Amino acid sequence: MDAGSSVLTAGLDLGGTKILGVVADAAGRMVAEQRRPTPPGPAAALSEMAAVLRDLRAAVPGVAAVGVGAPGLVDLEGVLHYAPNLPGFEGVEVRASVEAASGLPVSVDNDANAAALAEVLYGAARGRSEVLLVTLGTGIGGGIVTGGRLYRGGHGFAAEIGHVTVDPDGPPCACGGRGHWEALASGTALGRMGREWAARGDAPGVLARAGGRADDVLGYHVGAAALEGEADGLALMSAHGRAVAIGLGGLVNVLDPEVVVIGGGLVELGDILLDPIRAELPAFMEAPGRRTLPLVVAAELGEHAGAVGAAVLARTLAPSAGLGSPQESTVP
Amino acid sequence: MDAGSSVLTAGLDLGGTKILGVVADAAGRMVAEQRRPTPPGPAAALSEMAAVLRDLRAAVPGVAAVGVGAPGLVDLEGVLHYAPNLPGFEGVEVRASVEAASGLPVSVDNDANAAALAEVLYGAARGRSEVLLVTLGTGIGGGIVTGGRLYRGGHGFAAEIGHVTVDPDGPPCACGGRGHWEALASGTALGRMGREWAARGDAPGVLARAGGRADDVLGYHVGAAALEGEADGLALMSAHGRAVAIGLGGLVNVLDPEVVVIGGGLVELGDILLDPIRAELPAFMEAPGRRTLPLVVAAELGEHAGAVGAAVLARTLAPSAGLGSPQESTVP
Repeated sequence: MDAGSSVLTAGLDLGGTKILGVVADAAGRMVAEQRRPTPPGPAAALSEMAAVLRDLRAAVPGVAAVGVGAPGLVDLEGVLHYAPNLPGFEGVEVRASVEAASGLPVSVDNDANAAALAEVLYGAARGRSEVLLVTLGTGIGGGIVTGGRLYRGGHGFAAEIGHVTVDPDGPPCACGGRGHWEALASGTALGRMGREWAARGDAPGVLARAGGRADDVLGYHVGAAALEGEADGLALMSAHGRAVAIGLGGLVNVLDPEVVVIGGGLVELGDILLDPIRAELPAFMEAPGRRTLPLVVAAELGEHAGAVGAAVLARTLAPSAGLGSPQESTVP
Repeated sequence: MDAGSSVLTAGLDLGGTKILGVVADAAGRMVAEQRRPTPPGPAAALSEMAAVLRDLRAAVPGVAAVGVGAPGLVDLEGVLHYAPNLPGFEGVEVRASVEAASGLPVSVDNDANAAALAEVLYGAARGRSEVLLVTLGTGIGGGIVTGGRLYRGGHGFAAEIGHVTVDPDGPPCACGGRGHWEALASGTALGRMGREWAARGDAPGVLARAGGRADDVLGYHVGAAALEGEADGLALMSAHGRAVAIGLGGLVNVLDPEVVVIGGGLVELGDILLDPIRAELPAFMEAPGRRTLPLVVAAELGEHAGAVGAAVLARTLAPSAGLGSPQESTVP
C-alpha cells in the first residue's frame, strides 16, 4: 500500500428515499458504509447527512474530507439550485452546511456525475477517458467524463440529459415539459408504455404478472415478462430500446464517447434492456457505418456508485493524499 | 511583439464551394489570404488545397505548420470519414496528403470545431472557456470548447449537433434521417418553412419578394421580409427561433455553456435571427428560472473563422512557437 492509498475520504449520496454514506480509501475500496432514510425538508435531511457522517467517522477514524452527490442542479460552489425529488431544497447551500457540521472540507456535485466518475475509476468504464453514464430509473440522469475528468460546464450544470426534448408532441414530463427523453425512455416511461399496451390488449403476458389490472402495470412487470420470454414483454423492451436510442444517438453525435455506461434501476434487466438499445442506436447516429460505435455496457457499481464517486470527489480536498486531482489518474 | 507572435501558421478551410486559406501570426492576425473554387473529387480538391498553400507561402515566407478544417467527420489521425457535401471524400487521408504536398506538419479537424476555437480566441467568445458554436446555414454544424480546449470525444467526431433527432416524426433530413435538428432549424429549413407558408397563403410579404412564386421562396426572402418589418416574415423568424430553441435547449442542458455563439449564413440577419432564439430558449431548458442562462451572441469572424481556427490548430505543431498548446492560453 502506497502512502496515497491510506488516505480516507467519505462520500454521501443524498437520494430521494435514502442517504447512503461510505468511507473509501484512495484505491476506491469501501471500508465503511452507513445508510438512513431521507426525512422530508432540507433542515432534517442535512441533519441526517451529518448523522450518517458521524456514524462513519466513529466506525473509521481518519476521514480527511467529504464528497456529496446530490440529485439536481449543483453549482460550482456546492449550492443545490433545483432538485425535483427533494422538495424545498432549492437554493440550499449543501457544501457550507456539511462543512459546518463536520469541520471537514466538502465537495458537492450532481449524483450522476459522481457515479460516472466511480464507474470510470472502478467500474464498467475502467481505463477509458471518454465516457457517458446514463441512469435509467424513475427519471434519466447523466454524467460525462472527458479526458478522464468530469465535464461540468460553465456553471456546474452539465450532463442534464433527461430533459432534452426528443419529441415536441410527445408525452408530458414530470417536470412540466413535454416530450423530454426522460418522459419517453425512463423506467417510469417503460411502466407507462406497459399500461398503455395492456389497456388496449397488446400485453397479455405483462398484464397477467400485474394481477390482470392494466392500471397496476409497472416497469417491473414488463421486465419480468421479458425475462421469462413473453413475446409482449420483449416487444415492449424493443419499443423502449428505440425510445432510449432516439436520445442516446443524439448524445453520441454530440459527445462521441468510447463507452456508454447504462445504470439506474432498469439495468438489473441486463441484456434484455441493453440489446434493444444496441440494436436501435445506429439508426439515430450520424453516419453509423463510417465510424466507431461506442460500447454500450451495464454499470457495475450498483447503488454504491454515487457514494463512492462522491468519496473520489473529496480526494482533491484531502491535503495528505499527495495527489493532484485523482481524476487525472485515468488519463492515458 | 513577443517571440511567440512571430510564428506563422497557415489555415485551410475546405468548403463545399471554395477553399479559403490564410496565414496568421500567433496573435491571430491574418497576414495573407487566398481562395480557389473547390473542384469535384478528392484528388482535384487536394491538389487545389496544395496550390492555395503554395500561393500563401509565396506571399508570406516562413509558414511553420498547417491546419485544415474539413466539413465532416474527421478522426484523430486526420482522416475524413464522412463529408456529405464533398462526394467521394469518405476515407481520404487529408493530413497525410497535405503533409506530403507541403513538407510541413499538418493538423486536421472538423471545420466548425476550428471556427469555434477561433471565436473563443479572437471573436465573439473572447475570454470564455465554456462555449458552444452553432452554425446555421445549409446545414447545422457545431463546435464545443470546454476548459478553453476543443472537445473532440473518443474518436474525434464530437459536436455533430445537426443530426440530433428532435422530432421522430419530423421532416426528412438531407442525410436520409428524419426529424433531425438540421432538417427543422437550418437556413435550408427556414426556406422550406417559407415555401410552405407561402403556398398556403400565409406569407404574402415573403411571397412578393420571391417574385410571387411560392416554389422560389428561399431563406433569403424570409429574412428580407423580416428585416423590413413584414408581419409574415417576423412570424416565420419566430417559428424558426422555436425550432432552433428545441435543439439548443437540449444542448444547453447537456453542455451548460457560458456562451452560445451563432454563426453560419443566417447570422447576417442579426437580432432578427437571434431575438426569437433567445425568447424561446428557456422553454426548452431544465429549470430555466433557477440557473444562469447562457448568452446567445452572433459570431464575429464571418467566413474567416474556419481558416483562422485551422491556423490556430497548426500552432501545436510549430516547434518554434515556444508554446505548449495555444488553446491553453484561454483557460482562466
